[in-house]
Amino acid sequence: MREYLERVRETSPLIHNITNYVTVNDCANILLACGGSPIMADDPEEAEEITSICGGLNINIGTLNQHTISAMVLAGRKANLCGHPVLLDPVGAGASSLRTETARKLLEEVDFAVIRGNISEIKALAGEGSAARGVDADAVDAVTEENLEQAAELVRAFAADIHTVTAVSGAIDLVSDGEKTYIIRNGCPIMSRITGSGCMLSAMTAAYITANPNHVLEAAAAAFCAMGLAGEIAEKRMKPEDGNSSFRNYLIDAVYHLQGETLEKGARYEVR
Amino acid sequence: MREYLERVRETSPLIHNITNYVTVNDCANILLACGGSPIMADDPEEAEEITSICGGLNINIGTLNQHTISAMVLAGRKANLCGHPVLLDPVGAGASSLRTETARKLLEEVDFAVIRGNISEIKALAGEGSAARGVDADAVDAVTEENLEQAAELVRAFAADIHTVTAVSGAIDLVSDGEKTYIIRNGCPIMSRITGSGCMLSAMTAAYITANPNHVLEAAAAAFCAMGLAGEIAEKRMKPEDGNSSFRNYLIDAVYHLQGETLEKGARYEVR
Amino acid sequence: MREYLERVRETSPLIHNITNYVTVNDCANILLACGGSPIMADDPEEAEEITSICGGLNINIGTLNQHTISAMVLAGRKANLCGHPVLLDPVGAGASSLRTETARKLLEEVDFAVIRGNISEIKALAGEGSAARGVDADAVDAVTEENLEQAAELVRAFAADIHTVTAVSGAIDLVSDGEKTYIIRNGCPIMSRITGSGCMLSAMTAAYITANPNHVLEAAAAAFCAMGLAGEIAEKRMKPEDGNSSFRNYLIDAVYHLQGETLEKGARYEVR
Repeated sequence: MREYLERVRETSPLIHNITNYVTVNDCANILLACGGSPIMADDPEEAEEITSICGGLNINIGTLNQHTISAMVLAGRKANLCGHPVLLDPVGAGASSLRTETARKLLEEVDFAVIRGNISEIKALAGEGSAARGVDADAVDAVTEENLEQAAELVRAFAADIHTVTAVSGAIDLVSDGEKTYIIRNGCPIMSRITGSGCMLSAMTAAYITANPNHVLEAAAAAFCAMGLAGEIAEKRMKPEDGNSSFRNYLIDAVYHLQGETLEKGARYEVR
Repeated sequence: MREYLERVRETSPLIHNITNYVTVNDCANILLACGGSPIMADDPEEAEEITSICGGLNINIGTLNQHTISAMVLAGRKANLCGHPVLLDPVGAGASSLRTETARKLLEEVDFAVIRGNISEIKALAGEGSAARGVDADAVDAVTEENLEQAAELVRAFAADIHTVTAVSGAIDLVSDGEKTYIIRNGCPIMSRITGSGCMLSAMTAAYITANPNHVLEAAAAAFCAMGLAGEIAEKRMKPEDGNSSFRNYLIDAVYHLQGETLEKGARYEVR
Repeated sequence: MREYLERVRETSPLIHNITNYVTVNDCANILLACGGSPIMADDPEEAEEITSICGGLNINIGTLNQHTISAMVLAGRKANLCGHPVLLDPVGAGASSLRTETARKLLEEVDFAVIRGNISEIKALAGEGSAARGVDADAVDAVTEENLEQAAELVRAFAADIHTVTAVSGAIDLVSDGEKTYIIRNGCPIMSRITGSGCMLSAMTAAYITANPNHVLEAAAAAFCAMGLAGEIAEKRMKPEDGNSSFRNYLIDAVYHLQGETLEKGARYEVR
């Protein structure tokens, strides 16, 4: 895993983000923390030009509107032409028709390297009954040791079907290219008590795959391990009076300091 | 007071926020801290659908535009049809005609459970001479022990007139349903030295009234006490080198840890 | 330098910000930290009215779109009519035609008191070959002790040409009115590892020049020294596990506590 992290720090990939205004500051700071560099630009008039000077593209539909949807399509196609990896975070797919349809439209019009969401979002896109609860995965959908086999197969089949690495975060993470599936057990529960842990993971995954374009599956899995491990490190720093706001700071701090060797030792995953 | 806080943690209300892009991240994190769950969506095309899957709606006009104003009206009416409590934060009413008129239009077209603002904003909406200074209450308007009677009567009369619980934050808070008025003395001055303390209070109040729909007045008063008390706890944590940025983190942390018993003991209010 | 800082705290200037949604929260908090007061409003319908109740205007094109560009022009002209100082932060000029052209258009239509950018942005506007890397200055462009003479002359000449104080931040800062040039050596490298250090500096500079309208050059230089010095103070607070997220908090905290006397002693600059 360490080589994927180190390659981010060596190459400092510049990532174009078309993302929501809720967690955008955290996304920029996590990109800087992991060794990448962020640029945010969502006007259709400049979307293609900005993408062309970057190395990768992160599309997040968290607070989409007609204006930014156009920019997503334009930037996505341009990134494809440039050969840049593109990541989709289908925030809230299943929670509204606009979100589900926009995610589907993007999957049709843009060739994504990775789609990263929670299990409810992926179920919604897979056409399965999803129990999305707003922008969070529903407890009913949660991946547990009990339903792991079934969930892993769903993610693998979806990845195979859309020919795109599918990366699902939750208590147990699943990252699959349709053949191999990483099952990752890093992380801690308080990560779901801050806003933006998913969005930050998407931004960071975009940096990892941009720095490692020939190892998309492995780089995505490394980003997931790195974020989960950073969560564990952050949790250990917490004093009794610290809550979710301090945790957010510690999480970004932990990504900032995370070294390849620590990742290598701390990553907890199996490959099936 | 404790039962209103505890009911938020028990029911974890999902709150739809149409809010400004300045403090939106803090609003999301305070909702998670208090036990609720946030979703932000401001496109008119999905506003109604998103509201319908939530439990309550928080409308904040802090960086309004024509696009989001449409979404506010659509979501507000839909929430009314669904029987969800709706809160209005008329940020900057009195500072521009667009804000004052939008707040008035919303009050006409949507049935609000609570309106939460500073005293200058409420005066502007009440048609009284307001000395709004941008988005902050003006010193001239500030509620003090000296003008408390008069201010409490203004808030009570406004609440009675618009048949809506009116909740005014400041050094002394006033929360009235037109009959009973809570006078609350929690909080500390540094709360006005961070951006978003008012917006966060609105988001949290939306969660409290959504979790306690049959006790809107009491739940709003409890949210005000909880936020003020969290401010006091946060202030006690401050080290000499800590400033407003650390205070913001401590404030959200304190909400995260606040228990019903602490609120019960620490709430300082009288009812008139 | 101390008098410029103290004048901000004495007058608490209200600054209208039309800025990007990435770092807007940090801009609001740094304005509060330094003693100013922020208001954000970017709808063309209210831009002029909001500006007229403020003391100064900060225009930042970080996530510009057609809608906000109109608001920038309207607010800028109105601020000129009101005699309020206006600052331009041409974020990403050189990175896209839209940004470069918008910055040029604004320079034509609005009379700016200060333009604050990184060296790549200023080179792009000066029509020199710029090596902008997204929204960050490129290493090739960086001002160093070796190329200082040349860079200082470029900034001075640009300031003289556009009759506007030009303030360039980097490892070494340059602030010139076309005659005198401040060369400032405060700051620390980690300031470039958080998002928004440039945007925050622009917002704070707007507050300083608004509080000191008859000393625009000196006030801008003081804001630069203050921000750099706050960075140094923040860096000293860092514990081994602290990263860029904690640094951001410490930076704002340091601005919050910065006193005139500390600035006077810690400011490291020469005037040529």
